[in-house]
Amino acid sequence: MTTATRLHDAIAELAAFNDDPAGGGITREVYTPTYAAALARVTVWMRDAGLETRLDAVGNLFGRWEGSEPDAPLVLTGSHVDTTLNAGRYDGVLGVLGAVEAVHRLREAGAAPRRSIELVAWAGEEPRFGTGCVGSRAAAGRLSRDDLDVLRDRDGVSMAEALRGAGFDPDRLEEARIDPAAIHALVELHIEQGVVLETGGEQIGVVTAIAAPHDFRVTLRGAATHAGATPMGLRRDALAGSAEAMVALERIARASASGTTVATVGVLRVHPGAINVVPGEVELDVDVRDADRAARQQVVEAALAEMRAIASRRGLEVDVATIVEDTPIACDAGVIEAAAGVAEELGLSFRRMTSGAYHDAMIMGARVPIGMIFVPSAGGISHHPDEHTAPDDLDRGVRVLAGTLARLAA
Amino acid sequence: MTTATRLHDAIAELAAFNDDPAGGGITREVYTPTYAAALARVTVWMRDAGLETRLDAVGNLFGRWEGSEPDAPLVLTGSHVDTTLNAGRYDGVLGVLGAVEAVHRLREAGAAPRRSIELVAWAGEEPRFGTGCVGSRAAAGRLSRDDLDVLRDRDGVSMAEALRGAGFDPDRLEEARIDPAAIHALVELHIEQGVVLETGGEQIGVVTAIAAPHDFRVTLRGAATHAGATPMGLRRDALAGSAEAMVALERIARASASGTTVATVGVLRVHPGAINVVPGEVELDVDVRDADRAARQQVVEAALAEMRAIASRRGLEVDVATIVEDTPIACDAGVIEAAAGVAEELGLSFRRMTSGAYHDAMIMGARVPIGMIFVPSAGGISHHPDEHTAPDDLDRGVRVLAGTLARLAA
Repeated sequence: MTTATRLHDAIAELAAFNDDPAGGGITREVYTPTYAAALARVTVWMRDAGLETRLDAVGNLFGRWEGSEPDAPLVLTGSHVDTTLNAGRYDGVLGVLGAVEAVHRLREAGAAPRRSIELVAWAGEEPRFGTGCVGSRAAAGRLSRDDLDVLRDRDGVSMAEALRGAGFDPDRLEEARIDPAAIHALVELHIEQGVVLETGGEQIGVVTAIAAPHDFRVTLRGAATHAGATPMGLRRDALAGSAEAMVALERIARASASGTTVATVGVLRVHPGAINVVPGEVELDVDVRDADRAARQQVVEAALAEMRAIASRRGLEVDVATIVEDTPIACDAGVIEAAAGVAEELGLSFRRMTSGAYHDAMIMGARVPIGMIFVPSAGGISHHPDEHTAPDDLDRGVRVLAGTLARLAA
Repeated sequence: MTTATRLHDAIAELAAFNDDPAGGGITREVYTPTYAAALARVTVWMRDAGLETRLDAVGNLFGRWEGSEPDAPLVLTGSHVDTTLNAGRYDGVLGVLGAVEAVHRLREAGAAPRRSIELVAWAGEEPRFGTGCVGSRAAAGRLSRDDLDVLRDRDGVSMAEALRGAGFDPDRLEEARIDPAAIHALVELHIEQGVVLETGGEQIGVVTAIAAPHDFRVTLRGAATHAGATPMGLRRDALAGSAEAMVALERIARASASGTTVATVGVLRVHPGAINVVPGEVELDVDVRDADRAARQQVVEAALAEMRAIASRRGLEVDVATIVEDTPIACDAGVIEAAAGVAEELGLSFRRMTSGAYHDAMIMGARVPIGMIFVPSAGGISHHPDEHTAPDDLDRGVRVLAGTLARLAA
């Protein structure tokens, strides 16, 4: 069996662990029986690669390749094998099964790492309980016992209840914590989930920073009057005001100081929402992201100032509520240079880029040196049955990961 | 009892016929037991004003004051007493109870009309069955027996079934038809449902034309990509495109050739509608209205051309589907001059204006000479529990209606 076939077959096999095959995609939420079965299959693959496996207190699965200096801080790599609803087969999975494949190749090449290399499948990167990355948050000490009761899924099941149902004891949460000093570096292989590599024609992305969102809800209030009986000059149309606000937001984000800020209105609610009524109230959920926090803040402030000016001109009231304001994480120079060096050595085209999406690596990134390796996503499609990365791209990602692990563990 | 008190008390009494008092407003849909009870109360008021009453085959209630030339084409006046959900107490009701009050005043003043004057409470002006004005449509011959089976309410009840439930025979629909030659003029008193009179400080609106809508649905399709992972320059954001399209629509409507065109996006649906996903598809339901059909058409064409250009620049696909395209109705010069003459004679400030909203009068307007008299709506609020017209404004409307009926029936 060729190595490329081995990874491809494993990804296909894992895709069959699916609670909703009728949807066309994969539904495998953390702590479900289907998830547990998938994790058991991953455990076998890890053991087949010669790794010693263990589950921690919240269900993070580790596979250890002991180095020649077992007490030296180790090199950690991995991602997650849970999915959103009706998702694709690569998001997260590549970072776990690709790491298993990288271990195979290092072993086949006769590598003998000085530092131990540990693989991890983090529990619950996707936000079953509203908040994502619960497994890596637990490992980073960023989840409290109270959180486990508060965080609930769409059926009202708390994370503590879900843990118990899956055979874990929520009161042992603290045991999942990892001492940052025990980790030399963390590197995560992932699909890009965007079109930057595809558009630029590059094979590999070496991530220099992980952008973080500043999310807020803007509510514009005008007057819900009759669409026929209210002349244009006498309206206080909350949607027309929102339209002008969205045009301004886009213009301001495009002109950001960093050149990398993105701004999105992904949710917009119109009240009352009838064709013959001028909208009296509109809610916009705005997501602004950048790896450059100052540039992001400038965009948010300029956009809010412009929105308030638009509202004032139009006689609209405006309310702004923060949803979340997270801190971007810079990747470690050592990890970046290791990955870039390997890509160069392999003759692959690559780009240093920021990650716009959240990843488990970001959660640990505040405490340990991290890095990420991206491979292209066809059309940028992710969280969708059409999510796709070509086999050659998967293979290139594994080769860069293997080389990077070897350098970091040397 | 003063005459102003009589009307005010009748409006308050009718407001108690309400299927959902808990909502704070009035819910009285056509063909329900509550509606039938309200109509029975109106029948008594009509009889108290000396009118001879009858119900037609679809539940339109008429009250006749026979003139000295009973065979001469008559003067018809009225509106409706059904409501939308959680509505106010004046919409429609004023045109019926105000007409009863006008008859009282004409009788008290010793009037003896040459033409007969008939009052009408049209059945189902509000769109219980999706389409409004079903009673006046039946009278105008614009409703077929098949329509009665096709038109259904939100619970799936057909208009034919509702008619039967209320004691009518849908197979007798044709009997409701009125010969246009039998009507000399139709005049309807109504609240403005807008803020034109309030803004201008005028007491009476004399309607010169009833605007009609051209409604269409625009669907913009781009790519639903990750909000974090997709740089601004690589997006095909259907909502950002929609925002630009809405700004253009507003600008074009404001610059319309007639100066009276209004354009509204009252409904907007965003897919998939998640804060971290660039919207891949947006539907906008657009309503463009004017009494000037050519000006309306220019606005629609210019807006669609601009939307297509915006979509093309942004790499979006665009689909346009017509929802409805109705013909505006000009009011009759004789009716307009009668109402304006009365307002002037009474020393009231008035404005000649178009009606942006649909009314029963519009349905008959294609076949008989019509006119409308408006009184101010506080804040333009309508179809809402806060709908309000001051008692003095109600009284002024009744006086103008009474004088207009006297002139038209002379």
